[in-house]
Amino acid sequence: MTSIKPDYVKKLDLKAGRVEMSHGAGGLATAQLIDEVFARAFTNEWLNVGHDGAMLPALHRPIAVSCDAHVVSPLFFPGGDIGRLAVCGTVNDVAVCGAKPLYIAATFILEEGFPLKDLVEIVNSMAEAAREAGVAIVTGDTKVVEKGHGDGIYITATGIGEKIAEGEISGRQARPGDAVLISGSMGDHGTAILSQRENMTFLTDIKSDTAPLNGLIENVLKAVPGVHVLRDPTRGGLAATLNEIAHQSGVGIVLDEKAIPVKNEVAAACEFLGLDPLFVANEGKVIVICPKEDAPKALAAMKASPYGRQAAIIGDIVNDNPGSVEMVTLLGGRRSVDWLNGEQLPRIC
Amino acid sequence: MTSIKPDYVKKLDLKAGRVEMSHGAGGLATAQLIDEVFARAFTNEWLNVGHDGAMLPALHRPIAVSCDAHVVSPLFFPGGDIGRLAVCGTVNDVAVCGAKPLYIAATFILEEGFPLKDLVEIVNSMAEAAREAGVAIVTGDTKVVEKGHGDGIYITATGIGEKIAEGEISGRQARPGDAVLISGSMGDHGTAILSQRENMTFLTDIKSDTAPLNGLIENVLKAVPGVHVLRDPTRGGLAATLNEIAHQSGVGIVLDEKAIPVKNEVAAACEFLGLDPLFVANEGKVIVICPKEDAPKALAAMKASPYGRQAAIIGDIVNDNPGSVEMVTLLGGRRSVDWLNGEQLPRIC
Repeated sequence: MTSIKPDYVKKLDLKAGRVEMSHGAGGLATAQLIDEVFARAFTNEWLNVGHDGAMLPALHRPIAVSCDAHVVSPLFFPGGDIGRLAVCGTVNDVAVCGAKPLYIAATFILEEGFPLKDLVEIVNSMAEAAREAGVAIVTGDTKVVEKGHGDGIYITATGIGEKIAEGEISGRQARPGDAVLISGSMGDHGTAILSQRENMTFLTDIKSDTAPLNGLIENVLKAVPGVHVLRDPTRGGLAATLNEIAHQSGVGIVLDEKAIPVKNEVAAACEFLGLDPLFVANEGKVIVICPKEDAPKALAAMKASPYGRQAAIIGDIVNDNPGSVEMVTLLGGRRSVDWLNGEQLPRIC
Repeated sequence: MTSIKPDYVKKLDLKAGRVEMSHGAGGLATAQLIDEVFARAFTNEWLNVGHDGAMLPALHRPIAVSCDAHVVSPLFFPGGDIGRLAVCGTVNDVAVCGAKPLYIAATFILEEGFPLKDLVEIVNSMAEAAREAGVAIVTGDTKVVEKGHGDGIYITATGIGEKIAEGEISGRQARPGDAVLISGSMGDHGTAILSQRENMTFLTDIKSDTAPLNGLIENVLKAVPGVHVLRDPTRGGLAATLNEIAHQSGVGIVLDEKAIPVKNEVAAACEFLGLDPLFVANEGKVIVICPKEDAPKALAAMKASPYGRQAAIIGDIVNDNPGSVEMVTLLGGRRSVDWLNGEQLPRIC
């Protein structure tokens, strides 16, 4: 990002102003938008250099990189907005690599006519989430598309972090004999978004769980250095993520339905909407898979973290039926928790 | 990116198929799109792990990071497409930090209904540009927005590289007594895009210059380790970029119009379109600013590179009029080369 503002430019009207095509054309208007909206909120030693890219210190341990495009609709929802989501989603993706997130590169695709006050709110929300997570937004880019060719704002965030885990942490590392843990209740984010989208105003107490989990994950890694899998169950929910892990590790997973935390209001809303909370996106939860004997320590570390109070041990990795996920139901039966095939909740993140 | 494809899934129809909302919902359709389109083209040891993020080797020198959102319209143009542009633009942004680009993280915002064959062409073009530049596309993300909420495809690329330059290279380093060099002709990219957009079919010989410049820049740094500024004159063209540098370094810049390479057909098209080639975007050119005594060595290094055959010394850094750019015209007069104020060429990259 470049920061330049000759004296003759009138300040942006951040209350009533709107995004114009010129804000993406790379000239003075672009520089002014960067200066008065982005650089002001994200200020840090790297961004402030004003080069097109950021020059960061060497990283002497393996480097985790993850990126996400965010197209959530609506942009503002109970418990967060697209800005908080973009930062937390990326922080969490880096953290589940077993890494400490350090930096974020962010791009903004703005639609002509988007209110500057909404942009400022979103950017401030990103800055706040970045402060909470202890990461710096070090470089960025802004483009503007004509009215009708976007949807207000799309944000891409790429996170960079340094590995803190000892071994390889990936979806391929689940082993029979491991326990499956989850850091809290399932389905909050997707249900909050959908309630908002469908104007279900009677569901006002459902909030997205959007949160940075790097602190919680660091605590788990300290308590149990030999963690096998960390994964955030976002799009497709717990079910899709566990199916992926079962497939990648060539193992079976058996869940205990009664152990899986789901908030009453979320369960009720899902029933009303015809959804299964296990297939609904989360944005502040992490799956931990580790040897069964380490599970109590991992659980204690999760519960000791602000975003892990409702953590639970919810299942086992087994030899049977490799590649599949099954669940022991509340009534004691067994059912398959299959892949989500096709579109369930588009634009949930 | 995750790669999974149970046997019962029918292969994607890459000839007549289209992007569907389910391709962005995070379930099986998303996994299939990743597997059959992205993972196939970008295959490398990091991407193939199939985690949500990539784990890369440590980097023991300072790390350059740069990101760009690409919203160019049209998606295909003479000399390139949005895919080649996304890779080259990001490679160049990292290279002008004085770094060797190594990795790219890419996100795709697809519009429902976008033809899969166009997506495949674009993805293949990215893979080819990445091979040419010697970088690996190590992680990514795909989202889908409803028809009418996007414009076919937007691509964000974040580049990561390792510093190879000795000193600080930035827009703040230009010093009176330095020479200004450019690696080739000005205005090719923007003129190609605009000709295409305006259906000016008689301008068929104008091609975008979209190209990876990391090889050229590495050669310049080897020849002249004490380079002060490297910068690619993209949006806003040579004029905007030099104004930025003049402002950031607190120096004046004096250009020699007759030394600035502009192709005849580009000059003619610009006259027809009412544009000044110095304000038109380039996507395969770099500005080099170094002590005047080193300029011949830098020029030779540029000319020895495939994308620098038309390189030229085009001006001087001076003490006078700090923050401003002036040009000695063909007729020997002087004119100010001011900031581009407002919208000139939206969605040029």
